[in-house]
Amino acid sequence: MRSPDAVVGQQLSPNDLAQAAAAVLDRLRTRVPRVHCITNAVAQNFTANVLLAAGAVPSMTLSGEEIGAFVARAQALLVNLGTFDRERREATGIAVDTAVRNGLPWVLDPVFVDRAEQRAVYARDLIFLAPKSIRLNHAEFAALAAGEPTPASVSAFARDRTTAVGLSGETDLVTDGVRVAAIGNGHPLMAKVTAMGCAASALVAACLSVESDAFVATAAALLIVGVAGERAAAKSSGPGSIAVAILDELHNLDGPTLVSRAHITFAKASE
Amino acid sequence: MRSPDAVVGQQLSPNDLAQAAAAVLDRLRTRVPRVHCITNAVAQNFTANVLLAAGAVPSMTLSGEEIGAFVARAQALLVNLGTFDRERREATGIAVDTAVRNGLPWVLDPVFVDRAEQRAVYARDLIFLAPKSIRLNHAEFAALAAGEPTPASVSAFARDRTTAVGLSGETDLVTDGVRVAAIGNGHPLMAKVTAMGCAASALVAACLSVESDAFVATAAALLIVGVAGERAAAKSSGPGSIAVAILDELHNLDGPTLVSRAHITFAKASE
Amino acid sequence: MRSPDAVVGQQLSPNDLAQAAAAVLDRLRTRVPRVHCITNAVAQNFTANVLLAAGAVPSMTLSGEEIGAFVARAQALLVNLGTFDRERREATGIAVDTAVRNGLPWVLDPVFVDRAEQRAVYARDLIFLAPKSIRLNHAEFAALAAGEPTPASVSAFARDRTTAVGLSGETDLVTDGVRVAAIGNGHPLMAKVTAMGCAASALVAACLSVESDAFVATAAALLIVGVAGERAAAKSSGPGSIAVAILDELHNLDGPTLVSRAHITFAKASE
Repeated sequence: MRSPDAVVGQQLSPNDLAQAAAAVLDRLRTRVPRVHCITNAVAQNFTANVLLAAGAVPSMTLSGEEIGAFVARAQALLVNLGTFDRERREATGIAVDTAVRNGLPWVLDPVFVDRAEQRAVYARDLIFLAPKSIRLNHAEFAALAAGEPTPASVSAFARDRTTAVGLSGETDLVTDGVRVAAIGNGHPLMAKVTAMGCAASALVAACLSVESDAFVATAAALLIVGVAGERAAAKSSGPGSIAVAILDELHNLDGPTLVSRAHITFAKASE
Repeated sequence: MRSPDAVVGQQLSPNDLAQAAAAVLDRLRTRVPRVHCITNAVAQNFTANVLLAAGAVPSMTLSGEEIGAFVARAQALLVNLGTFDRERREATGIAVDTAVRNGLPWVLDPVFVDRAEQRAVYARDLIFLAPKSIRLNHAEFAALAAGEPTPASVSAFARDRTTAVGLSGETDLVTDGVRVAAIGNGHPLMAKVTAMGCAASALVAACLSVESDAFVATAAALLIVGVAGERAAAKSSGPGSIAVAILDELHNLDGPTLVSRAHITFAKASE
Repeated sequence: MRSPDAVVGQQLSPNDLAQAAAAVLDRLRTRVPRVHCITNAVAQNFTANVLLAAGAVPSMTLSGEEIGAFVARAQALLVNLGTFDRERREATGIAVDTAVRNGLPWVLDPVFVDRAEQRAVYARDLIFLAPKSIRLNHAEFAALAAGEPTPASVSAFARDRTTAVGLSGETDLVTDGVRVAAIGNGHPLMAKVTAMGCAASALVAACLSVESDAFVATAAALLIVGVAGERAAAKSSGPGSIAVAILDELHNLDGPTLVSRAHITFAKASE
């Protein structure tokens, strides 16, 4: 397996990307990174369990007095806009400042920006603070970008903002504005589990703490969740059991399985 | 199957009510209603998963700046008084106002009003804002109504407040002050899972978004939870596994199963 | 079985302690104590389910207006410092005051005091308010006590503060400064489930409500969690399934199983 550092900066093949994702997974287990999460009240427990299962250590305080210290001792930060209230807004200001000052990668998950205009405005402001990656779904992309997601529109969005984007859907799309990967893993039942996307965003943050190429880190996280999810689906009877089984599968997943199960294709960044 | 609209306003039989509940379940899956939930911190994740499993889409922000926009784009509202703090109190004011102005049905779940007098006072005030349904347990009813629940006392309570009531217990009681149904489905293990009643209240809200007869909607929700719960219990070894299995069963439940499993009897609204 | 009251104040054997834990478990099921929990947002749902599975009834409001009434009607209080914000800080002041005034036992879980100095300072202040027991892990002990945990250092810490201590780790250590028990039950997968320790602390509070000897109550709670956890691990494939199975096992655990599975040894309180 070539090292991801060798891979970065040259032409990746889909198999290279899967191999790089496997290396990211190995480094998660070895380095056990701390990921501080500002996330919504619905997602906190499941997100913490996803991070633990994958090999990271979550923390979640929102207290303005404490969050600076927590972020400073973490290796990555997640900002998820679900159930976004005054406390989370204050916490986000301090946390992102701390991350920027310390050179920590941070991820934005603009949950439900399609439901309240204030939240979309706030998300657009946050993007100026240079998240390394943005993970979102189709409705959220449409609200932020004022247009439907296509490989070309998503990669233009990423290029203009100098960030990676992970767009979740039936097929996930990952791009940094130059490279565009489509990941066909996952299972429809995953959309019936609350916080599945939120937890994937936290895993993007974890992967960024061990992989400086944001395109590779974002793709690795979505591939890990997708493969774990489809393996979990095979053992599940519905949305309750898949939510449990995906934690088991994340914990038990190894690099060779990830590579052999990966369904990755590349698209062009522009037409 | 007769349509529920034909059923409303005439004499329902228990089997009619089960058929109407099956039709409600079908409409949930077809219309995928959005349900905004102000609910307690313990219940948020499980409630979201119950709504998703049954076919609805939850949102849960409490932010005063956003909640009006969220409720305005939803089809029903839940107000659950668990872990009720300043933020939830402010959110409730805005959310109920928005629901009333937009003609959205809303449901009150007066959790633990037997534990703090302030909470009971607040619940009584909220009832003046005309919830379409109130779902609660025996201790909560006793605290609100200053008397033990019987078919007669519960239906008088509902009649006086022009609301439907869903009283959970070994047998659930549903009434709108005129009609009184006893639903004998469910399983004792369900009482050992936190937020089971809270999630049932959220499902009442979901059902109200697709069924204008509050008696039918409330009965449908409690029947759906009861049948899913007893099917889940048959596959479970305790409170952990039933909480998972009920999500699977909610997702997999169909109308004919609901009708064939229903244990509904009717009582008189007054003695 | 000798009664725990006979056991207290005389020399306990490890088997006596296991028998006393079994008696505590029986009393939990008989008395169904109410435990009010100030705990972090990540842990609330799992903690409530652990308490219900073991036989107690949780409540979790943080509202300054209500929490006094809730604590006054409870039999024990937990203060967990995870996700500690202004609301939890205000709630803690009122709740601990109420507990002290009413003679209720309360437990401190100083989550992540190793991550933010402000939190460690606050925890040290709280200890002056005489928790009956403190449950924590190695990093948290090291931050509070300014030294690594050993049987001697932990028992000195407990003795100096007139409290019991439950130190979680590969082997749990329980001491009141005089007696020191090492509990070798549990399973490594438990550390991959968020809030497992937090829930154990809540169970310490529940046990204190039915057992006045804080050493016995703390050991009982950690033994119950450890035995339930290792039985759950035997049926699990990873951190998702063990989190479910431990709730089943807690619900189904009986005294004789607890005694027969207990791995308890005693150490000396000082060298």
